[in-house]
Amino acid sequence: MPVETPLLDAVKYPADLRKLEKNQLRQLADELRAEVIDAVSVTGGHLGSGLGVVELTVAIHYVFNTPDDRLVWDVGHQCYPHKVLTGRRERIRTLRQGGGLSGFTKRAESEYDPFGAAHAATSISAALGFARARDHLGRKNNVVAVIGDGSMSAGMAYEGMNNAGHLGTRLIVILNDNDMSIAPPVGAMSAYLARAASGKLYQGVRKISKQFMKRLPPALYDKLAKAEEYGRAMVTGGTLFEELGFYYVGPIDGHNLDHLIPVLENVRDMDDGPVLVHVVTKKGKGYPPAEQSADKYHGVAKFDVVSGKQHKGAPNAPAYQKVFAKALIKEAEKDPLIVGITAAMPSGTSLDLFAEAFPDRCYDVGIAEQHAVTFAAGLAADGMKPFCAIYSTFLQRGYDSVVHDVALQNLPVRFPMDRAGLVGADGPTHAGAFDIAYLGCLPNMVLMAAGDEAELVHMTATAAAYDEGPIAFRYPRGEGVGVELPEQGRILEIGKGRIVREGTKVAILSYGARLAEAIKAADSLEAHGLSATVADARFAKPLDHDLIRQLVRHHEVVVTVEEGSVGGFGAFVLHFLAGEGLLDAGLKIRTMTLPDVYIDQDKPEKMYDVARLNAPHIVETVMKALGRSAEVVNLRG
Amino acid sequence: MPVETPLLDAVKYPADLRKLEKNQLRQLADELRAEVIDAVSVTGGHLGSGLGVVELTVAIHYVFNTPDDRLVWDVGHQCYPHKVLTGRRERIRTLRQGGGLSGFTKRAESEYDPFGAAHAATSISAALGFARARDHLGRKNNVVAVIGDGSMSAGMAYEGMNNAGHLGTRLIVILNDNDMSIAPPVGAMSAYLARAASGKLYQGVRKISKQFMKRLPPALYDKLAKAEEYGRAMVTGGTLFEELGFYYVGPIDGHNLDHLIPVLENVRDMDDGPVLVHVVTKKGKGYPPAEQSADKYHGVAKFDVVSGKQHKGAPNAPAYQKVFAKALIKEAEKDPLIVGITAAMPSGTSLDLFAEAFPDRCYDVGIAEQHAVTFAAGLAADGMKPFCAIYSTFLQRGYDSVVHDVALQNLPVRFPMDRAGLVGADGPTHAGAFDIAYLGCLPNMVLMAAGDEAELVHMTATAAAYDEGPIAFRYPRGEGVGVELPEQGRILEIGKGRIVREGTKVAILSYGARLAEAIKAADSLEAHGLSATVADARFAKPLDHDLIRQLVRHHEVVVTVEEGSVGGFGAFVLHFLAGEGLLDAGLKIRTMTLPDVYIDQDKPEKMYDVARLNAPHIVETVMKALGRSAEVVNLRG
Repeated sequence: MPVETPLLDAVKYPADLRKLEKNQLRQLADELRAEVIDAVSVTGGHLGSGLGVVELTVAIHYVFNTPDDRLVWDVGHQCYPHKVLTGRRERIRTLRQGGGLSGFTKRAESEYDPFGAAHAATSISAALGFARARDHLGRKNNVVAVIGDGSMSAGMAYEGMNNAGHLGTRLIVILNDNDMSIAPPVGAMSAYLARAASGKLYQGVRKISKQFMKRLPPALYDKLAKAEEYGRAMVTGGTLFEELGFYYVGPIDGHNLDHLIPVLENVRDMDDGPVLVHVVTKKGKGYPPAEQSADKYHGVAKFDVVSGKQHKGAPNAPAYQKVFAKALIKEAEKDPLIVGITAAMPSGTSLDLFAEAFPDRCYDVGIAEQHAVTFAAGLAADGMKPFCAIYSTFLQRGYDSVVHDVALQNLPVRFPMDRAGLVGADGPTHAGAFDIAYLGCLPNMVLMAAGDEAELVHMTATAAAYDEGPIAFRYPRGEGVGVELPEQGRILEIGKGRIVREGTKVAILSYGARLAEAIKAADSLEAHGLSATVADARFAKPLDHDLIRQLVRHHEVVVTVEEGSVGGFGAFVLHFLAGEGLLDAGLKIRTMTLPDVYIDQDKPEKMYDVARLNAPHIVETVMKALGRSAEVVNLRG
Repeated sequence: MPVETPLLDAVKYPADLRKLEKNQLRQLADELRAEVIDAVSVTGGHLGSGLGVVELTVAIHYVFNTPDDRLVWDVGHQCYPHKVLTGRRERIRTLRQGGGLSGFTKRAESEYDPFGAAHAATSISAALGFARARDHLGRKNNVVAVIGDGSMSAGMAYEGMNNAGHLGTRLIVILNDNDMSIAPPVGAMSAYLARAASGKLYQGVRKISKQFMKRLPPALYDKLAKAEEYGRAMVTGGTLFEELGFYYVGPIDGHNLDHLIPVLENVRDMDDGPVLVHVVTKKGKGYPPAEQSADKYHGVAKFDVVSGKQHKGAPNAPAYQKVFAKALIKEAEKDPLIVGITAAMPSGTSLDLFAEAFPDRCYDVGIAEQHAVTFAAGLAADGMKPFCAIYSTFLQRGYDSVVHDVALQNLPVRFPMDRAGLVGADGPTHAGAFDIAYLGCLPNMVLMAAGDEAELVHMTATAAAYDEGPIAFRYPRGEGVGVELPEQGRILEIGKGRIVREGTKVAILSYGARLAEAIKAADSLEAHGLSATVADARFAKPLDHDLIRQLVRHHEVVVTVEEGSVGGFGAFVLHFLAGEGLLDAGLKIRTMTLPDVYIDQDKPEKMYDVARLNAPHIVETVMKALGRSAEVVNLRG
């Protein structure tokens, strides 16, 4: 163990922590911080958020009787210190690894995680549920939600506050104002918090009142100048929350335990009603490299603690999102109508590159996917060409906007969907598993998936050119497969796939980035004397009926492969075949999809092993369909 | 024409309206109101909302240069007066009828409807899109959104405001504060608006400042009492909106054209930044029956204008939602852990009946589906049994909460889903078309659909008893089929369907309320000498594999029928059959789903004709599968 942690060594659970003297907590916090830095240097993961809440975590567990008191962390990526203090220190160096601790809160992991999270802004709603359950069940426990200011741009946080204010139930919401979610926060709320915290709002009021006072008889002016406390009490911070029915406390220095603990004790002992505690923290606090570059240290690779240098392996191929952004920039150079929209993921989507190239044509709307999509719909309705870049998993948050505002009105909004399929260390909460199903059922949608990074360039060009309605294209997280990138994207024919490799007996119809595995599987089948065609469907909607007919007509076995759930591409192929009577006379067809379970974090290729969607599984599926299970055994051996 | 409308007769389009003198507008508004009342008395529809905005509609079209200025109505059900003034008066008595005008704004209908709506709270986001498109394109037009106070409980409205405040673009949001969406509004925002409008907030400030002033030297007190205008200017209404970056104007009497028009003119001529105009109106204004019973006159049947009496036909069978509520009440009498949640639809879901029976166990969280679902997840995580009753179409708004907070954590939230399938006069925006696909792809979900109203009673009991994870059950809008209702619901075996009628050659596997049509189709097939089995799947997830195997083994043709899109029940059946190799040797299988188009409003049975999901279409599908198309022709003739 590279750091000495005598106090921390004695704290396995919060009950141990509560036995310490208050004046020992500062040292404990320091030890906890060192432990978190060291652990993340080994595992990689979210660093800055956790470092920002070290003192807050200590204070909460000291003041509140967890796990009986329910503690709900919003997003959950700031929970590493919490995990260390709640019986999980021994496993903390397995964070985000296969079989290890989740990088987020997770119910299955600990009773100290009453509610799992990973997407933003769910904590207030969930905490209100816990609070009302307490009331119904006649319990007395406290419920505490900790939510970052970045999450406050999400409408869901507002919905939760609005309902909590209405119900008036006892509930404590700690607003962790670190002025940074992943990217710098945007939106009026963020500006509001900054004003509250810095006292600028108060300054504004002071100015107004001075102007007013100058119009009074001069005799009154001096006395009134002293009376500005009136304005201060009323307006410094919190009015907005108080309008929503919360009792506002703050702002408080979130790194000062002597401030935090008494305030939390007071709040704990309040009788009723929802309370908002506004805590100001610094992301990356206590680790200079993270403090100085909060964005780069939000999520980190393994790093050297002393130098702060991250060990990012040299990429073998450019990342999909970079390929996308560069392709989009090329299209935007030709077409001034193209604008980009991100919901608080400028770097994750690489739209930050687009924003550099076209500062006036890129929107970061904050964590607000519903708004992002409908805002895009409004832009499209008046002739703009919005690219609304939202990860597959986060587009779930904007689903009704896609249905009601985009698809139903057939508006040409482009949806580049990053993080399609399984995503590795972020685990099941971030899996892009469902979009083919949830978008494919919508009339008017056009759906594409990139078989490789060159295809992504073409699909970006195709989406730019397609102006008849909505079009979405999905691509995975991480590096491409290393194919040569075209100088300029080519506009693909809508609803047309392509034959990648011709064979005679077996057809593998791939949709999306399993294409490389499909080709590998075909090689393997050839080695066993089974001639295999590989087709890249490119489109899940509209389907390439001619291609499917051709595959069915000329092959004994047809296997579809996709990085998505049931009800997606394979289902659309089956619906088509059934409707056309192409199954009447018999067809050995198999649809390979993600299995009907959530797949735990691991390296993506291992997750696809669990999902049984790698090349050997494709081969096995073909062999079984052909009744050649003996050979499957050989293949495995 | 039963009402005289000399001015209105001369106004076909807003351009005509703008030729009138200001002092003629009062009469025009009166004529417009009379016309709307008369039209809705013939068609039925949304009455109160439209009557509340007659003057506002006149004022907006008078002041703004529509359609060049973009006018976005939130929800759109208040747009009947707008339709009368924008070239659609001649068709106004076709509202909500087959082939007639939509009951909402609709792009395809008029250039005066730049953005369609029906779900709440989309207007600010869309309007911001129009505003930015204007800026990008170098235009100068105004953009006006009109949003009701009920929509302000939706997080999406907040997301839109937050982004608008941040961007600082010129945009006008008119908040139509009628203190009533469908049900009385709930939430802290609603209380806030009431305070702003009634001046109670101002009164509060006044009280505080008086208390403060009493501590001043008595000589100052009198002078300061006069200075309370300071407090008034600062705090009467609007702080909350101003915190979000809007310039706040109001409250204004929304029925007084002499107040409305100058304010709108001022606002129109402001240079930059978003403005919120707070207008107070009365729902149902000018028609006493609607004023006095705003809830009952929100959506009306045809009615007699003089008496206000609505012509509701006597029902043949109880409505599904009533059956559900009564069944839930019975379960809740036995189980104190059951609570009900609605997102602003207490009457539509019939949870108002549940709330009457258990006032402390029913939550109306406002138009806030995301919060509703995650709030339910929190309740379930601590042992409660929440029934989160949201229409199929509105659950789209809470989709990520279902995925991330409920299904992934396998929390036992119950989802009664009303308005499954096609819904009649509300049209495609309200169709419950996609839930089987968007929920069925999620691991852990259990999905049921009621074949008739007795089944709904059993499914309510089953959901109450099922505590292993999330469970959803769908049922259609409107009356049941008239079967006898069980005194008490029976707990169904999870994942088991039932044979309703035994035959030998054809199997119709129905999921949900097409069951009656499936039985009719079987009768018809029998008449043609084709022995038909009808099975009710009950569950789309988990599938009844035994039942499906049995149907496949013993029948030449198998047809699945559901009131949902592709990628749903039929897809799951096909996935299963393919995976098991049950298609290898050939099977005449057909999946009958909603077609891949949005189906316009009409009577539900006519919409199902368009969808080709009625009994004759089932018969035709079977005949075609059997190669007996000649008989299909006969059937049609």
